[in-house]
Amino acid sequence: MNEQSLIDLIKKTCPSNASVLLGIDDDAAVLKPTVRETLVCTDMLMDGVHFLVKEALPSAIGHKALAVNLSDIAAMGGRALSAYVSLAIPKDLTGEIFIQSFYQGLTDLARSFDVAIAGGDTNIWKGPLVVNVTVLGESHARGPVLRSGAKPGDKVFVTGPLGGSLSGHHLTFTPRLRESRELLDHYTIHSMMDVSDGLAKDLREITRQSGVKIILDKSSIPIQPHIATHKDSLQKAMTDGEDFELCFTLSSEEAERLKRDSKFSYCTEIGLVTEGEDLYFSGEKTAISWQGYQHGVKR
Amino acid sequence: MNEQSLIDLIKKTCPSNASVLLGIDDDAAVLKPTVRETLVCTDMLMDGVHFLVKEALPSAIGHKALAVNLSDIAAMGGRALSAYVSLAIPKDLTGEIFIQSFYQGLTDLARSFDVAIAGGDTNIWKGPLVVNVTVLGESHARGPVLRSGAKPGDKVFVTGPLGGSLSGHHLTFTPRLRESRELLDHYTIHSMMDVSDGLAKDLREITRQSGVKIILDKSSIPIQPHIATHKDSLQKAMTDGEDFELCFTLSSEEAERLKRDSKFSYCTEIGLVTEGEDLYFSGEKTAISWQGYQHGVKR
Repeated sequence: MNEQSLIDLIKKTCPSNASVLLGIDDDAAVLKPTVRETLVCTDMLMDGVHFLVKEALPSAIGHKALAVNLSDIAAMGGRALSAYVSLAIPKDLTGEIFIQSFYQGLTDLARSFDVAIAGGDTNIWKGPLVVNVTVLGESHARGPVLRSGAKPGDKVFVTGPLGGSLSGHHLTFTPRLRESRELLDHYTIHSMMDVSDGLAKDLREITRQSGVKIILDKSSIPIQPHIATHKDSLQKAMTDGEDFELCFTLSSEEAERLKRDSKFSYCTEIGLVTEGEDLYFSGEKTAISWQGYQHGVKR
Repeated sequence: MNEQSLIDLIKKTCPSNASVLLGIDDDAAVLKPTVRETLVCTDMLMDGVHFLVKEALPSAIGHKALAVNLSDIAAMGGRALSAYVSLAIPKDLTGEIFIQSFYQGLTDLARSFDVAIAGGDTNIWKGPLVVNVTVLGESHARGPVLRSGAKPGDKVFVTGPLGGSLSGHHLTFTPRLRESRELLDHYTIHSMMDVSDGLAKDLREITRQSGVKIILDKSSIPIQPHIATHKDSLQKAMTDGEDFELCFTLSSEEAERLKRDSKFSYCTEIGLVTEGEDLYFSGEKTAISWQGYQHGVKR
């Protein structure tokens, strides 16, 4: 397929929604004026770094390219509204099957969260597959949840088990948009981010931006069952990365309420926020030195 | 430099503005609510396709990556507000000099149009340089100008000379944001787009989306001086592409007013819109068959 026939195929399959006044077909998409703050995130995924074209299903690559961005919107407590998909496609992948499968994975996920695919840029070249997705969202009525809002006295939670993502989860995960929305509907969340570079690195980012110390309870970190018997299972859970669960902090009163709420039984308390800096395990005198997986640094 | 030190360097140099509540440093940027429609465009540029790393100045690559997007916002009649820059940087270009020069070109242009660099994603890999920029803007008080608004009776204009862009203009051009704004401030523009794939292909897009025919006056197409003596200068002006001038249509009354207005002396009338379809030269019975340069198809 040449570029124009790729576009025609893409246009037929892309969902829209009420936020989009004009999508694909002009120099820019046109979106409705907004009442709340707009959230914008962007992620570039490259063959050999974030996925392997030779091993992954094309639909899984399409899914992941959108999902990592939806996870960022979830981490802000927002709702995703529209996505913009740029592609550099190697010549040998321009067959209809690859592109259709890629977009199937991407649009299936988009539809399930009512996200419009409202624009993009499609190119063919000699290099490896590169996908860039930008997602626009709107913040929750309570405003965006930042990394910088953790307060001494807060409790730290995570929305699901961690580690071993490379065996498949990193391609197939469901971004925690619904969980994030429901949390904000019912609780005052002080700080939040998604676990993309590994819990150790990501929580350290919250301590740095909030000017606090976090003390984790080793035994309460939820670990993915398939790595639970691994000799370094805790380290893997804290450093493998691409878990795309949410970690967040809230006051101890809110935390007690949350733990009694059966609707949020997937949330696990893993530690507390105190005055100070850096990330520790309870009872240890030196900070956790584990780093995360650096597959691309978000700005 | 590793990825984190690249980010630190980038953060120091990036401009902000009043549209941005929170830029680089969280899972997503946070923008102020908007009164007018939001415009969104995105462009991916790849080494060997849109620029040559071996020949172009890094600052010129940075300039172009933002400029092509600003040109899209200009084509909608809008104002650019914020940009999001994703990079896949080959290992051998991660020296400070390349990155600093790249960002110098990009941020110089951003500052000259008061555009914030509010986010992005920086990666290092083994492949060639890939840059994706997404720009958000706001439409003019009169609303966005579309490709689909040309009307029979309209006159067709272009904002500057065309052709021969590959000799340098495609890397160094100034996006027509100021011209676009000033045109909309004073005239009712029916349709507009930027000349990226070549005037022939781009005007054909206006005819297709507006359901009209455009008849061009061969002798009035403005041609870049450095290709004027080329034997195929007209064809080059109409098909080389990457001119990033604006072509637009407006009523014949507005056109007469525009031609008398010395402030807009850079605008040249090149043809008229009639009922029908496709693109013709005046006096010829068959449609113009020239295609454009297909270096990536915008959706």
